[in-house]
Amino acid sequence: MSYDDQNIFAKILRAEIPATRVFEDDDTLCFMDIFPRADGHCLVIPKTPCRNLLDASPAQLAAVMATTQKVAKAAMAALQADGISVQQFNEGPGGQEVFHLHFHILPRWSGVSLRPPGQPGNMTRIAEFAGKLRTALG
Amino acid sequence: MSYDDQNIFAKILRAEIPATRVFEDDDTLCFMDIFPRADGHCLVIPKTPCRNLLDASPAQLAAVMATTQKVAKAAMAALQADGISVQQFNEGPGGQEVFHLHFHILPRWSGVSLRPPGQPGNMTRIAEFAGKLRTALG
Repeated sequence: MSYDDQNIFAKILRAEIPATRVFEDDDTLCFMDIFPRADGHCLVIPKTPCRNLLDASPAQLAAVMATTQKVAKAAMAALQADGISVQQFNEGPGGQEVFHLHFHILPRWSGVSLRPPGQPGNMTRIAEFAGKLRTALG
Repeated sequence: MSYDDQNIFAKILRAEIPATRVFEDDDTLCFMDIFPRADGHCLVIPKTPCRNLLDASPAQLAAVMATTQKVAKAAMAALQADGISVQQFNEGPGGQEVFHLHFHILPRWSGVSLRPPGQPGNMTRIAEFAGKLRTALG
């Protein structure tokens, strides 16, 4: 399996298409999922090419996990979440739709189920939650 | 949130209760989930105490991710899976039921949905898939 640099996350990394950015460091970027299954649903990706977990380097995995942990902790505090679900999909039958490694961070609240996949979110609400995360991560 | 060393994965690590083991190294253990949502569904845990992603050390995360990747690749090859879904749950509302850090590795095949959670698996079938994974990892 190869890496296609025309995938939408590669375009977000090159700022060819917009994204609601939450956090970045030298190696990773976190931005909001526009099909949020929960308020505050965001994605963490490496800045370097990588299709998924199956071809990730140890350095890419370490960087992405460090940011995933950092954002998860921020979501617990800033969004007063009761828990966090993390998902990571590999290849189409594994649930992957964009072929650039990404970890889903899904803030969870007691009694609130995940929304069904594939439903566009309200961009105002997405921006509101991104702002809370950015403040906590600042 | 604290770590309770009476959780069932801590008991598996101390061999106080049985598990169908797949792989281990100095820092991690992989064993089969007995409520499999897919054939070959297994779990990767650190050998040292850790509640979940929120309190994991960088060393624990690196070790667990390295084994998760290794087992995911083995599942693709040995089980002829078409993809892998990875899940990791934090705190009860986040989906966590056992409070020792664990990553779920779910082998996936085209057209086959995940089974509902909470259904005990057939131990013969679990052992069969564990054997295939062990052979690939040996």
